Amino acid sequence: MNYDQIFDSAIDRLHSEGRYRVFIDILRNKGAYPNARCFHGHNGPKPITVWCSNDYLAMGQHPKVIEAMEGALHDVGAGSGGTRNIGGNTHYHVELEHELAELHGKEAALLFTSGYVSNDATLSTMAKLLPGCVIFSDALNHASMIAGIRNSGCPKRVFRHNDLVHLEELLAAEDPDTPKLIAFESVYSMDGDVAPIHAICDLAEKYNALTYIDEVHAVGMYGETGGGISQRDEAADRIDIIEGTLGKAFGVMGGYIAADKKIVDCIRSYAPGFIFTTSLSPALVAGVLAAVKHLKSSSEERDAQQHNAAMLKTKFAAAGLPVTISETHIVPLMVGDPVRAKKISDILLAEYGAYVQPINYPTVPRGTERLRFTPGPAHTEAMMDELTEALVEIWDRLDLELQKAA
Amino acid sequence: MNYDQIFDSAIDRLHSEGRYRVFIDILRNKGAYPNARCFHGHNGPKPITVWCSNDYLAMGQHPKVIEAMEGALHDVGAGSGGTRNIGGNTHYHVELEHELAELHGKEAALLFTSGYVSNDATLSTMAKLLPGCVIFSDALNHASMIAGIRNSGCPKRVFRHNDLVHLEELLAAEDPDTPKLIAFESVYSMDGDVAPIHAICDLAEKYNALTYIDEVHAVGMYGETGGGISQRDEAADRIDIIEGTLGKAFGVMGGYIAADKKIVDCIRSYAPGFIFTTSLSPALVAGVLAAVKHLKSSSEERDAQQHNAAMLKTKFAAAGLPVTISETHIVPLMVGDPVRAKKISDILLAEYGAYVQPINYPTVPRGTERLRFTPGPAHTEAMMDELTEALVEIWDRLDLELQKAA
Repeated sequence: MNYDQIFDSAIDRLHSEGRYRVFIDILRNKGAYPNARCFHGHNGPKPITVWCSNDYLAMGQHPKVIEAMEGALHDVGAGSGGTRNIGGNTHYHVELEHELAELHGKEAALLFTSGYVSNDATLSTMAKLLPGCVIFSDALNHASMIAGIRNSGCPKRVFRHNDLVHLEELLAAEDPDTPKLIAFESVYSMDGDVAPIHAICDLAEKYNALTYIDEVHAVGMYGETGGGISQRDEAADRIDIIEGTLGKAFGVMGGYIAADKKIVDCIRSYAPGFIFTTSLSPALVAGVLAAVKHLKSSSEERDAQQHNAAMLKTKFAAAGLPVTISETHIVPLMVGDPVRAKKISDILLAEYGAYVQPINYPTVPRGTERLRFTPGPAHTEAMMDELTEALVEIWDRLDLELQKAA
Repeated sequence: MNYDQIFDSAIDRLHSEGRYRVFIDILRNKGAYPNARCFHGHNGPKPITVWCSNDYLAMGQHPKVIEAMEGALHDVGAGSGGTRNIGGNTHYHVELEHELAELHGKEAALLFTSGYVSNDATLSTMAKLLPGCVIFSDALNHASMIAGIRNSGCPKRVFRHNDLVHLEELLAAEDPDTPKLIAFESVYSMDGDVAPIHAICDLAEKYNALTYIDEVHAVGMYGETGGGISQRDEAADRIDIIEGTLGKAFGVMGGYIAADKKIVDCIRSYAPGFIFTTSLSPALVAGVLAAVKHLKSSSEERDAQQHNAAMLKTKFAAAGLPVTISETHIVPLMVGDPVRAKKISDILLAEYGAYVQPINYPTVPRGTERLRFTPGPAHTEAMMDELTEALVEIWDRLDLELQKAA
């Protein structure tokens, strides 16, 4: 039994597949984002433009957010000092849960240390509360949902991505008396496509299934007050559990669910991933409170994001770059090979100061490796032009094919 | 299939057992901790003294920590904006990992969003990297370790708490060629007792098992520079993976492991709970960096904590209160019944402004319900005298038995 050998070969596998991950070491510049400093492979920091952040609306540098965090830091200190039950339940936590419940038109909400944990803890616990529950899971669900479903130990039926016919087929095949839960996302983060929420809810009603939606790539960005796609589509009241993140459009860190009081109370009382962990730092919670409140009343950031995402897609398409024209803010450029995706990303960073991470397996299926751009309200047209020109040059240099402009 | 009924009965079970949890809503007062404001059941905030926080050394209000967090907030903003791989790897993260590796005399370290996640992600992934691995787990291991072991899907052998004879019996029963991992804690948080680290490492060597130690209730507080019990006992080099938290003695939030480079690289590359989650806010990381550095050179906080914990134990014992005389900073007062534990806690808070949460199942085994006090450097002797008198009065009021003073 040679442990070293096993660990070595696990790492070697990644190198040989060209998907060993190298983390780029950066510091963003507050007030000048998407500008940042890069410490990677250079003597000292070098200025770069960030194109792959999930701080979608640049709320991570919003003066209201910074001020609120600073205020909490000076009022109550750095960490919460305990679990929610043992000393770590601050007034900020209580207030933010009210705010998030209201955002989604639900009775209650519950904070978690991350979106990953909210999916894992909620799904695994929900299923345990419902003996014999069968979970219907979209084929492209996020790793954290897959973890939660697996950790529940419940039988799982995977339906083809956004495929209602397949979902109905699987629902119909189960005993009507079996508890059922349909788990899906609203905006799928790697392609930017959107789930048919109402149609899924129709099926849920028909087959008496509960519904669970992951809105992490939508909250703050869609709907009149930032309640996500379920708000935009006026479907929130048809969803049993809405899950969201505080670390993307809201610019800080953490995750949550919003649902009926009794469901929230069950998860609060039974989920080990909620119970046995130090609660979010009050400073983070205060920052999120400011972000959620701001985005409830301001649509400026949402509008600018949509405008800029559309502009970048148009520029990429006009240049013949293989952009996927999604209906959302996510701009994927297909490469289809992990080594080449990394190569393009490396050149962009080293020669053009443009930072976009290659997205390889297991984040996306093999063969669909890509670059994923997330332009936000703070990206300018000049930045987009520079980026497009750089990509065209690199496509040419690497003998990649440009498509005919549409 | 009536979902509502199922959720209702899950909540009813908790009420009927007297262990439905009510979160006390507080705000600590930075600069005046353990003083805090309580919003629970009062009109407006009421001053209280916190006795159950895991901000063990009051680092959550240390000027160096606050200043560092404020600095990062203004330099780079609120959240990291992405996973470690996609935009969320800041220079702070890289620096803190170096600092933590050095603290434990290891080659590398890896940050997680919480201690819970570090245990869950590391244990479940380690076991998956080692096909057929058998995990030997102390009976009192924390819920997050139990989750990680369960989620690994590996066979588990639970050894009686700190029982070397039982552990050896179980190790000897396995095939010598089977991969093995022994998972245990250094300081057990609810009783405050300590694992025999060297003796466990002797067995690990004899049976060629890897060792994993959870030091969340020890890092910052034991060892010459705060490296935990494994540092105090000069055993860190015999442990394969040391896990710690950034949310207790270091006063902020987050978790980590420290280990050989290749083990850390494997977890970094294969653990979904590490890969697919927004990284810690840079402000948190900056705060922890300041805390770790401070506690490396200052023993003042550690010494004051030990002094005050010893003093409180002495006062409780002298008053005849059923205190467990542990060798560490944790001061458990045994009650043995969930309803009574909650009752004592409620009276303390409402009438004496002393906040200590009842600890009930599933945090501790049924029948061992308790109050758990964590005096730190900022608790004064006057506070301890008041608390002791209050407890004696309540013990008397509830007809509980006081022991003869030793």
